[in-house]
Amino acid sequence: MSTAWTSRYAQRTKNIKSSAIRELLKITQKPEVISFAGGLPAPEVFPTERFREACSKVLSTQGRQALQYSATEGYEPLREMIAGHIVRYGVKAKPENVLITSGSQQALDLVGKLLINPGDRVLVEAPTYLGALQAFNVYGAEYISVPSDNDGLRTANLEDSLRLGPKFMYVLPNFQNPGGTTLAEGRRHELVLLSERYGIPIIEDDPYGQLRYEGEHLTPLIALDRQNMGGDDDYSRGNVIYLSTFSKTLAPGLRLGWMVAPPDVIAKLVQIKQGADLHTSTFTQMVAYEVAHDDFLDEHIKLIRKVYGERRDVMLRALKEYFPPEVTWTRPQGGLFLWVTLPEGMDAHQVFEAAIKENVAFVAGDSFYAGNGFTSEGRRHFRLNFSNAEPEQIREGIRRLSVAIRSQLAGLPPEPVVR
Amino acid sequence: MSTAWTSRYAQRTKNIKSSAIRELLKITQKPEVISFAGGLPAPEVFPTERFREACSKVLSTQGRQALQYSATEGYEPLREMIAGHIVRYGVKAKPENVLITSGSQQALDLVGKLLINPGDRVLVEAPTYLGALQAFNVYGAEYISVPSDNDGLRTANLEDSLRLGPKFMYVLPNFQNPGGTTLAEGRRHELVLLSERYGIPIIEDDPYGQLRYEGEHLTPLIALDRQNMGGDDDYSRGNVIYLSTFSKTLAPGLRLGWMVAPPDVIAKLVQIKQGADLHTSTFTQMVAYEVAHDDFLDEHIKLIRKVYGERRDVMLRALKEYFPPEVTWTRPQGGLFLWVTLPEGMDAHQVFEAAIKENVAFVAGDSFYAGNGFTSEGRRHFRLNFSNAEPEQIREGIRRLSVAIRSQLAGLPPEPVVR
Repeated sequence: MSTAWTSRYAQRTKNIKSSAIRELLKITQKPEVISFAGGLPAPEVFPTERFREACSKVLSTQGRQALQYSATEGYEPLREMIAGHIVRYGVKAKPENVLITSGSQQALDLVGKLLINPGDRVLVEAPTYLGALQAFNVYGAEYISVPSDNDGLRTANLEDSLRLGPKFMYVLPNFQNPGGTTLAEGRRHELVLLSERYGIPIIEDDPYGQLRYEGEHLTPLIALDRQNMGGDDDYSRGNVIYLSTFSKTLAPGLRLGWMVAPPDVIAKLVQIKQGADLHTSTFTQMVAYEVAHDDFLDEHIKLIRKVYGERRDVMLRALKEYFPPEVTWTRPQGGLFLWVTLPEGMDAHQVFEAAIKENVAFVAGDSFYAGNGFTSEGRRHFRLNFSNAEPEQIREGIRRLSVAIRSQLAGLPPEPVVR
Repeated sequence: MSTAWTSRYAQRTKNIKSSAIRELLKITQKPEVISFAGGLPAPEVFPTERFREACSKVLSTQGRQALQYSATEGYEPLREMIAGHIVRYGVKAKPENVLITSGSQQALDLVGKLLINPGDRVLVEAPTYLGALQAFNVYGAEYISVPSDNDGLRTANLEDSLRLGPKFMYVLPNFQNPGGTTLAEGRRHELVLLSERYGIPIIEDDPYGQLRYEGEHLTPLIALDRQNMGGDDDYSRGNVIYLSTFSKTLAPGLRLGWMVAPPDVIAKLVQIKQGADLHTSTFTQMVAYEVAHDDFLDEHIKLIRKVYGERRDVMLRALKEYFPPEVTWTRPQGGLFLWVTLPEGMDAHQVFEAAIKENVAFVAGDSFYAGNGFTSEGRRHFRLNFSNAEPEQIREGIRRLSVAIRSQLAGLPPEPVVR
């Protein structure tokens, strides 16, 4: 069942493959499966009633504007709100520094279009967000993978990697997906200084920054970069393109994200976005503004932190209770994910097969590594999401998962006898 | 005011320029200007109250689903509705033949990503839709421009162009943007047969097909292609990718379009779209379905036809009344645009300068030609939109425009004396 001319597909389509997670969703949609696989927010915290009121107000008072074409840059009050928000962190952004995108996945696609020539190298964390790899692959990116530890991306030997000439660095400093780790403050400073020294921009992807359940907020890279440049009122240059989204704080179904960057970079991104989808839905932008404004979003985020913080704690306790001592995991201070490490010799894909029999799912680690060089390392890990399932399900899911792991552990060859 | 690393932009960004229309909007936003420049629907026909009810219903009964992530392919009931609609034209489409896109601009971008290698040729009409050129340029397209006349794309010498090996043909058969012309039935058959013979797919862009104000609906290329393949129930192959949108029938502010194609092509496009924006807003898709279903859309389109048909008539009458006899124009049977031809020696850009002084705007023709080979031809034309302004404004705008044209006409060198 194939159309004759499909042999005419562009070269770049060979770099495109469906994400493992997408295929996984078919399995995890069965009601009996407890899924830690996706990165879905908890739908029970969506402020649906406030959305209903916002839609009603927008359509009653500005209906003609909301349903009409609008500027590629985005809805001006929303851009102002976002600029105002990042000012809190010391970045004196104005609306001209902000571009509204159709989710932050589109921001990643625009970054790829802006910066990647076929064969260009992109410096990424190992592991990293697979949606970014998908977006960059299509533009022919090659990768320089830099290992991370509990303090995030390791900066110790970063200069060796930078001398290989990556086009840009792609980093998730807060509660990284999939690692759950947070980039330490000292490393943030180092990264920003190296970016300036080598003239290599940083793409700072921060979808979860607001969702911190303990500890102090750390300054984003974009703010450190602006400080290094004198922190002046005139935000006309910078080495960081900052990405964030309403997907984890309001609702992913809106598909609303944003980019913050110097005005000349935003202007070029606007031209690129114009060819990609003209503009993001006027209606969802106006509704999101109406929902978020008057400090509602700040209040709502407190609720989300409470709910997700509890779920994280439930998962951490269950892991400690049920998992065998050979297995370790990260302890995220926020976000949606934690990262499990299996003992040497175990294979996350085999654990997955066993887990599905127990009706519990996760994503095996190898999807989160760029290129094929990390397949064996990747297979020692898997990612667990703790935002979507309710506490009792989390406990039960981890219990089932421990059964799957123990079944595999039993099959491991015995430890070599040390003579 | 430039960021140092912006010298690192990818090669393809050199092909990206802001559209003339975008720049124009700054001028035309002045309240005293009557603009025939954009392609905006009339906001007074937006069914805002029905939208309000739909939002309320969706959020009350399916709020958690509407605000959550969803499948890249699109909202299943909406895909079914669209498949059902195209069945009317004899294309036995199923939901698996349909991909929901973030406006049909995204469909054009996905087509570019799917098919265009740098340097590949794309066969387009001269003139053609500039948003398509913007989308294709970024993938490094070269163009083969085929002239059109009152019956649309000229198919007489098309084989010469096909032997140059274009990757695909991009055609707007109904009420073309900018020409306002409709591809004649015989030419449709020819085009589809040539597509099959040469193995060169057709991208059929049909945003306006529903907006016919006179005459009979002509069979879309996708339906003729399916007939040629036996018109069987198993829609598993075909040479046409069909694009349409809710932008001209419901509301452009939703950013909802769709593609219809064989399932293997849709499957590849789904992978590409996943990297581009994960999926189109769940919420706008569910709201659009709720607004459109129960035959509301069919009824609503009757209203739009009435309003736009009247405006077309008003513009045609005003053109006849006010414009000097040296100027000609197309007589569209539907859609949003007509195309004006100036006498030899006149320059649409100079007319534009004069028109702006009279507070009336349009888009000069050269924006609608691929490459630079048609600049002088393009400058003899301009595009007029008749959907957005109200009838009295249309009359007044055409009167002002005639003043601008006559001022330029007066400056033309006298006709050479025939001896």
